[in-house]
Amino acid sequence: MDNDIDTAIQSIEWRDDHVRILDQTYLPGREVYSDIRDVGRMWEAIKKLRVRGAPAIGIAAAYGFYLGIKELTENSFQSFFIEVERVAEYLESARPTAVNLHWALERLKTTIEAHKDKEISDIKNIVLKTAKTIHDEDKRTCKKIGEHGNELVEKDARILTHCNTGSLATGRYGTALSVIYHAHEAEKDIQVWVDETRPLLQGSRLTAWELMNAEIPMKLITDSTAGSLMQQGKVDLVMVGADRVAANGDTANKIGTYPLAVLARENNLPFYVAAPFSTIDMDLGNGDAIPIEEREAEEITHFNGSEVAPKKAEAYNPAFDITPHRYITGFITEKGIVEPPFDENFSRYLE
Amino acid sequence: MDNDIDTAIQSIEWRDDHVRILDQTYLPGREVYSDIRDVGRMWEAIKKLRVRGAPAIGIAAAYGFYLGIKELTENSFQSFFIEVERVAEYLESARPTAVNLHWALERLKTTIEAHKDKEISDIKNIVLKTAKTIHDEDKRTCKKIGEHGNELVEKDARILTHCNTGSLATGRYGTALSVIYHAHEAEKDIQVWVDETRPLLQGSRLTAWELMNAEIPMKLITDSTAGSLMQQGKVDLVMVGADRVAANGDTANKIGTYPLAVLARENNLPFYVAAPFSTIDMDLGNGDAIPIEEREAEEITHFNGSEVAPKKAEAYNPAFDITPHRYITGFITEKGIVEPPFDENFSRYLE
Repeated sequence: MDNDIDTAIQSIEWRDDHVRILDQTYLPGREVYSDIRDVGRMWEAIKKLRVRGAPAIGIAAAYGFYLGIKELTENSFQSFFIEVERVAEYLESARPTAVNLHWALERLKTTIEAHKDKEISDIKNIVLKTAKTIHDEDKRTCKKIGEHGNELVEKDARILTHCNTGSLATGRYGTALSVIYHAHEAEKDIQVWVDETRPLLQGSRLTAWELMNAEIPMKLITDSTAGSLMQQGKVDLVMVGADRVAANGDTANKIGTYPLAVLARENNLPFYVAAPFSTIDMDLGNGDAIPIEEREAEEITHFNGSEVAPKKAEAYNPAFDITPHRYITGFITEKGIVEPPFDENFSRYLE
Repeated sequence: MDNDIDTAIQSIEWRDDHVRILDQTYLPGREVYSDIRDVGRMWEAIKKLRVRGAPAIGIAAAYGFYLGIKELTENSFQSFFIEVERVAEYLESARPTAVNLHWALERLKTTIEAHKDKEISDIKNIVLKTAKTIHDEDKRTCKKIGEHGNELVEKDARILTHCNTGSLATGRYGTALSVIYHAHEAEKDIQVWVDETRPLLQGSRLTAWELMNAEIPMKLITDSTAGSLMQQGKVDLVMVGADRVAANGDTANKIGTYPLAVLARENNLPFYVAAPFSTIDMDLGNGDAIPIEEREAEEITHFNGSEVAPKKAEAYNPAFDITPHRYITGFITEKGIVEPPFDENFSRYLE
């Protein structure tokens, strides 16, 4: 790929015969890389969130799948394919709700079936090649998002972001963070406000780490400080990622996104969602149909294993919220900036 | 006082010859009461946040002041008063910016001067009586706030609140929490959403503890979940306290209050501030003049002493934000509910 931004780390890498991942469970304290040489270790890495972020999980699973099938000794395609399906099922069980994991494994199985008449050793090589393609495609998509988004960023812009949407969550660069990497590379002297992102602190632990690693000026804030900053005129632009976007532009993203969008509009600030077209679900008319994952109360009542709330305190812990499309200035995609009306303009790009 | 609500604990109590405080540094894990018999221990209790909340600090300081002067053996008023001022200065150094602490000590010194012709033993008794009066007045004010506010609460109301504004922060009952105690006592079957309140988690640690202790149904949420709840129609009323209110109604309160106010208005929900008239500063025209305390970055970058952000990560940590008066439905005070225009109506109540 041309014009790599060296400061944007790559959290997954294929090296000759194995995968090297940056183990995110040690961040931000320690930068630990792990070499993964078999499917069992990849299953464990996905399960234990050593690799996280939907696109990154898909890529890791694709390489893990290759590691799982490459030693298979079956000679007939039929018996080989039975084992192939077992490997896919096993990997998928690591995080059953991760859409990209499922999508990557389905794509690899389809590829195998399309080449059923080839030698099994050839098929294995095709699988590795496809895994690398999945990785490259994601990097290219993220790079395009960053390049398009960069056009929206003025010199000296102060950008507020939420959660982690960077190199750690994707093949490289990320979505909203890709824009930030590209604006910094273009020497725009940007400054980033990083929401800590309760309850799991992806902002403090991961985004702050990525930005400091790339020497991009940033300051951490609690999530509820964002409003005050906007009110004081200390923010020029809000940029977030997306977990799922409906056809009309309603956007599911990390809890806390909706308040940022409302506060941005109240303070006349642009609010952009950076996401690849694969996140846009044209089959969903609006955000009402997007299911919201509710997570364990312990993420709020405990911290690093110790109690911060009374015993038996109940908590409500949704992972995402829905930002209605009317608060969104535009979507930054790999195909360009999409402005309202979103439904119409998404369709135009998809034609 | 009539009609006490037994479930509202009293975090400070005068007992014959000493003060008993509920040590808030052990909450919510353990309920530890400490008997304080000398001014040095009271200084330490205020300094180490064993007692916190502006009105509670004022009350604790008043009792501590009495403990500090009661053993003085000076016979002349002049030499007695020199020691008195030393005790006041010492106590004030525990938390120099706490307005109520200063106010309580000034009041006691003025009382002493007003009785300079009396026997010193009589003056000491008058000081204890005045300390008890300060405490009683605060309880009465909080009770009135609760009673007035209760008129705003419908049956089955779901109330969202922020930070800790309860018995732990005042002589008893609190401000916004006093309304909640009174609505619960009136069997309105209320349910409370408690913002955890980053960075110091007063919601999780203190408000959740008070409500569970009083068996008031509640659920904890991260601060950025409030918006989603309002959007989903799961909140009927937002009620918060205040640290300082300007003449026009602009309100300084715990960081995160301004976003709640904006989100409430966006979702057509009433947003009330519960505060005694002593919090309203008629000398300040609007919120621009209220200074905002900026606290240590460590409150965000560390948690229970361990790092949650990269080493040397910068953070911006303001303790308060300003909610412009236009987002506030009304103020719940000890004199009644004050509606807009606030400037005019505050003045009318103060006549």
